[in-house]
Amino acid sequence: MIIIMEPRATQEQIQRVITLLKDNDFEVRYNTGDVHTVIDAIGDKTTLTPGRLSALEGVKEIKVIREPFRLASRDRNPEDTVITFPNGVKIGGNNKPVSMIGPCSVEEDYEGLLKVAQAGKEMGCEFLRGGAFKPRTSPYDFQGHGEKALQYMKKACDETGLLSVSEIMDACDLDMMLEYIDVLQIGARNVQNFKLLKAVGKCNKPVILKRGLASTIREFLLAAEHIMYQGNTNVILCERGIRSFDSAFTRNVMDIASIPVIKKYSHLPIIVDPSHGTGQRYLIEPLAKAGLVVGADGIMIEVHHDPENALSDGKQSLSIPMFKDVMGRINSFNNRLHYEKTCLSANVE
Amino acid sequence: MIIIMEPRATQEQIQRVITLLKDNDFEVRYNTGDVHTVIDAIGDKTTLTPGRLSALEGVKEIKVIREPFRLASRDRNPEDTVITFPNGVKIGGNNKPVSMIGPCSVEEDYEGLLKVAQAGKEMGCEFLRGGAFKPRTSPYDFQGHGEKALQYMKKACDETGLLSVSEIMDACDLDMMLEYIDVLQIGARNVQNFKLLKAVGKCNKPVILKRGLASTIREFLLAAEHIMYQGNTNVILCERGIRSFDSAFTRNVMDIASIPVIKKYSHLPIIVDPSHGTGQRYLIEPLAKAGLVVGADGIMIEVHHDPENALSDGKQSLSIPMFKDVMGRINSFNNRLHYEKTCLSANVE
Amino acid sequence: MIIIMEPRATQEQIQRVITLLKDNDFEVRYNTGDVHTVIDAIGDKTTLTPGRLSALEGVKEIKVIREPFRLASRDRNPEDTVITFPNGVKIGGNNKPVSMIGPCSVEEDYEGLLKVAQAGKEMGCEFLRGGAFKPRTSPYDFQGHGEKALQYMKKACDETGLLSVSEIMDACDLDMMLEYIDVLQIGARNVQNFKLLKAVGKCNKPVILKRGLASTIREFLLAAEHIMYQGNTNVILCERGIRSFDSAFTRNVMDIASIPVIKKYSHLPIIVDPSHGTGQRYLIEPLAKAGLVVGADGIMIEVHHDPENALSDGKQSLSIPMFKDVMGRINSFNNRLHYEKTCLSANVE
Amino acid sequence: MIIIMEPRATQEQIQRVITLLKDNDFEVRYNTGDVHTVIDAIGDKTTLTPGRLSALEGVKEIKVIREPFRLASRDRNPEDTVITFPNGVKIGGNNKPVSMIGPCSVEEDYEGLLKVAQAGKEMGCEFLRGGAFKPRTSPYDFQGHGEKALQYMKKACDETGLLSVSEIMDACDLDMMLEYIDVLQIGARNVQNFKLLKAVGKCNKPVILKRGLASTIREFLLAAEHIMYQGNTNVILCERGIRSFDSAFTRNVMDIASIPVIKKYSHLPIIVDPSHGTGQRYLIEPLAKAGLVVGADGIMIEVHHDPENALSDGKQSLSIPMFKDVMGRINSFNNRLHYEKTCLSANVE
Repeated sequence: MIIIMEPRATQEQIQRVITLLKDNDFEVRYNTGDVHTVIDAIGDKTTLTPGRLSALEGVKEIKVIREPFRLASRDRNPEDTVITFPNGVKIGGNNKPVSMIGPCSVEEDYEGLLKVAQAGKEMGCEFLRGGAFKPRTSPYDFQGHGEKALQYMKKACDETGLLSVSEIMDACDLDMMLEYIDVLQIGARNVQNFKLLKAVGKCNKPVILKRGLASTIREFLLAAEHIMYQGNTNVILCERGIRSFDSAFTRNVMDIASIPVIKKYSHLPIIVDPSHGTGQRYLIEPLAKAGLVVGADGIMIEVHHDPENALSDGKQSLSIPMFKDVMGRINSFNNRLHYEKTCLSANVE
Repeated sequence: MIIIMEPRATQEQIQRVITLLKDNDFEVRYNTGDVHTVIDAIGDKTTLTPGRLSALEGVKEIKVIREPFRLASRDRNPEDTVITFPNGVKIGGNNKPVSMIGPCSVEEDYEGLLKVAQAGKEMGCEFLRGGAFKPRTSPYDFQGHGEKALQYMKKACDETGLLSVSEIMDACDLDMMLEYIDVLQIGARNVQNFKLLKAVGKCNKPVILKRGLASTIREFLLAAEHIMYQGNTNVILCERGIRSFDSAFTRNVMDIASIPVIKKYSHLPIIVDPSHGTGQRYLIEPLAKAGLVVGADGIMIEVHHDPENALSDGKQSLSIPMFKDVMGRINSFNNRLHYEKTCLSANVE
Repeated sequence: MIIIMEPRATQEQIQRVITLLKDNDFEVRYNTGDVHTVIDAIGDKTTLTPGRLSALEGVKEIKVIREPFRLASRDRNPEDTVITFPNGVKIGGNNKPVSMIGPCSVEEDYEGLLKVAQAGKEMGCEFLRGGAFKPRTSPYDFQGHGEKALQYMKKACDETGLLSVSEIMDACDLDMMLEYIDVLQIGARNVQNFKLLKAVGKCNKPVILKRGLASTIREFLLAAEHIMYQGNTNVILCERGIRSFDSAFTRNVMDIASIPVIKKYSHLPIIVDPSHGTGQRYLIEPLAKAGLVVGADGIMIEVHHDPENALSDGKQSLSIPMFKDVMGRINSFNNRLHYEKTCLSANVE
Repeated sequence: MIIIMEPRATQEQIQRVITLLKDNDFEVRYNTGDVHTVIDAIGDKTTLTPGRLSALEGVKEIKVIREPFRLASRDRNPEDTVITFPNGVKIGGNNKPVSMIGPCSVEEDYEGLLKVAQAGKEMGCEFLRGGAFKPRTSPYDFQGHGEKALQYMKKACDETGLLSVSEIMDACDLDMMLEYIDVLQIGARNVQNFKLLKAVGKCNKPVILKRGLASTIREFLLAAEHIMYQGNTNVILCERGIRSFDSAFTRNVMDIASIPVIKKYSHLPIIVDPSHGTGQRYLIEPLAKAGLVVGADGIMIEVHHDPENALSDGKQSLSIPMFKDVMGRINSFNNRLHYEKTCLSANVE
């Protein structure tokens, strides 16, 4: 790391920093410019953290050179992470991008959920997603059906052969969820709920981690690091829009460029969720394709058997006929992209 | 609420919305402009939610007129909430703004914590704050000393007569924390951790709720509503800076105007945390004063007995001598503001 | 428009608003809810503006129903704008998306510029862009070669048959620029330089208007409206990234969804600039494709004959060999998308 | 500056950077960590710019140590800039903060303007501000009365002894404005209109430069640098709110902390504009005081003789009676702050 001293830092203050670094076995070099002294230090940042150094008198700023995430970094782990499910479905690397579809929340009507699952199966999707516990901004909104919803999810997946995805909101629910669910999801609002990250990090179940509304890419990868640090390396990232100054036409701004950026700096798979990312039905197809063309490993789309009567997020849900229409076009696009990508890499080899 | 239809909504779509509203006992009036039909509906938004209406075909946008928070709103509860502690300290209303001080995290050295508490007592502060569980962006950073830290907090408060404040990160820790702590804090990253909001809502302990980095004022008050909805109305809001496009000189941007805005729309007390809000020692005094002058009910300031060796947030912590200096000036300012405010209101009556 | 009164607005305040509306020939209806009175008014907002109404005592908020841009709106002008150049090149509607390439600024070395133009021609691009006047954040940076650069641009275009694009920064330069340049560009920093918008609005030359770093979509379309209002309807919008809280890996966040949003609400063509939008070479190809797949009418890419010695923006410029490589893949992608789009629309008809 | 190489930069790439630095007379030192090579270079950044270096292959990032603004920096010019007007009024340094008041735009009714000016004089204000040319987001809004408005401004100032402030939007208007106006203002939307910055930089008239909606503090100071670089060092900065994700209750977020930050890094005076910063009448008094308490050198407040009939920004304007009320309290606050500040500094000496 690089320690930049204040313009008027005293020789004593500079020496203090250098001594502390050396005492902690850092290799130290420094330059004194006409204004700032700059100290370059190589060593173990877990014994002497940048935060601690920054508190020393006379220190203006610390510039950390190496990215703070380690297990998630491509630097240290150049190979793409590929997650393989018992039924042979794979996410990540050179595998064909997957599709996850389903309602925002699982409702009373099991037949409705099953219809969505069957439509998903028919269109070649691999995952059924549905919420059992709903994070809701207002306490007056529908909060989800809990375990009953998970039972429905399992049943619909057993009938169709899809894999199930559902959000976990409380570490206490983990054991129960593991009985029913193939992929745990951590929602955008919980991206820095460290207790929850730790809890899912201690199981082996694949986890979809959604980017927070105000997460930087670095913080997002550090949230993944919290999970991986506990042993669970089956992390799937999900870009679902960030907060911006303009929410007149879309709920969030989808940071499509974050996908190739994350691919460069991390080996983890990343999917894209245009339903939450835009909050508008008519934007799902174009933004799903945009995600795929920049390299996403999958898409997540809200589908409801009766969006006009959905208990949550009906506005951004596709009905089953709309979904079949949209998914048909996304499938052609995805197939061709995948064909070219694999041919290309085959030719290169 | 007002339902704005798409420019090309059909008569059928319009009738569909009106019928649904009437079926749910809404009082309905509507105008057909040359482009948009606008429907004005008065009724119970918990039986027919704006979200559900927005999913109907032909609906462009729903404009909710009344603020969605209820228990927290001044509209419905015009009187200022005042929270009274067993030792007579009061927060809110016309009471003199309080001061909360202490280290970001409680460390091994009990004597250090005690020195901070004693300095706080000496300077007239009412609360000692110190973290036992630390939410940390990176898993490689210090995570807090847990229960032991809480014991230290209790001991230092018993010795000095201060009230203790500490952050809760997991609903499972609630019972344990209630034994040691006078005020629970919910951190910025957990402002939409609804499980945690619910859990603290079920006890009676006062709760400091920090605004999230990307919380709108409305979402912030809805987070408070989640706590109040469970029965606990002892909520103290805390403005601690929001995320902006510029973090070169300050960690966050303090939204000082949010304090009088929240005072207008809610009866809850609100304090200001310039240490986290700016991340810079030299900005603590001016921003604390700015918070007080616009009407904050208290301030929260990081003080560490040895900031250069603090395990977290040393950069933004004041040392004890600095703190005494700064706090002396803040006290004079606070005393005079309070004197004028109470004299003024006395004269008005 | 809808006028929402404060919860405690008096009957007098309400009557005042209604009288003013009626005096201005608005058609008025209103509801009195249990808390708010809501007034629905249809009439000419240029005689009585929402801004003026909002200043009346007791008015909480005005909600304008119809979008404030008129000439730019698809509502009023459903047909796509198509801009046709003398050489037959067309932008907008169902025409194949175009490519604009060239250096950030035109430098001393004419041969370098010509090489870029020739490479562009060879790869099927239609436009050469190059800056003569450079808006630079710092006065110590290179400010452009002015008229000489424009002469170079004209010469390189004459030799290759490309059309030229260059930024105008000052209304005083307009006549001079019209001699040399086929398309005027207004940069992101000048998106609300109304004097400049007016000036270019008075000529007939096509104008590329770049979205400001902090322009909402509505403000962006209103900036276009300023140009169109003066008579020049040949406006091409350009999405080039907006400012967000994260600039660690990309200069800006590209708002890819803004392209289909703008297509829905406006008939104007829109292109995408991934070079400025990301500031990173490796993101140009994926983001150009993402722009095209969501419906952009063209792309703009920085190419320099010697990026390592470029006087500005070398970091985000492609060298000529990189460009040929990238452009080849973008061309295949673009051709296929266009083929499908036109076949599809042919089939639908 | 510090050049951080990519993790896999080759020896050749590293040597290339070093050679280029040495060829440009930079003093160079470098470290090779286990991952990144870091090069520390001291020299003249105008001969070899960071932008150019960043385009070299293998360079990951450039960290500039010294702030890029020079004339505006306190580093190089430790003394506070004080601007003195012919009538003895002073802005900056230890002088008592000034007050600028007046309507958003000057309207047809001269008597109205005069009443505002007289009220300002009566309350001890030093400046009358009023717009002659209005930057308006929509072309359908009132655009200002131009020269006639400037004549009114001059007349009202001649009658009252106030100094006049008005916004310049076009370099072509400069000579005309210099005849009538004591302080030129550059609006937020023109903060990076470099032609205009240059033009006002070539005269000697004091200039108020408003921070852009999305200007970082560094960009804001660089905009001031553009003016100073042309010779005009009479620059007064103005904080007037920045754009954030929440505009439900306030138009912008006032970055109150930016005032002490700018005071630390620059010697220029800075004032605060709570009318534009919040867009709400009831927030003007608290935010004006917040600005003063953190060290602003003045305040700017919108006052209109008849806000309900104002042609622009009535919502955020104070009427004359409200203004007198608010200004009275601000004056007491300001006087006491100033008294303490000057006594304090006198005692310290």
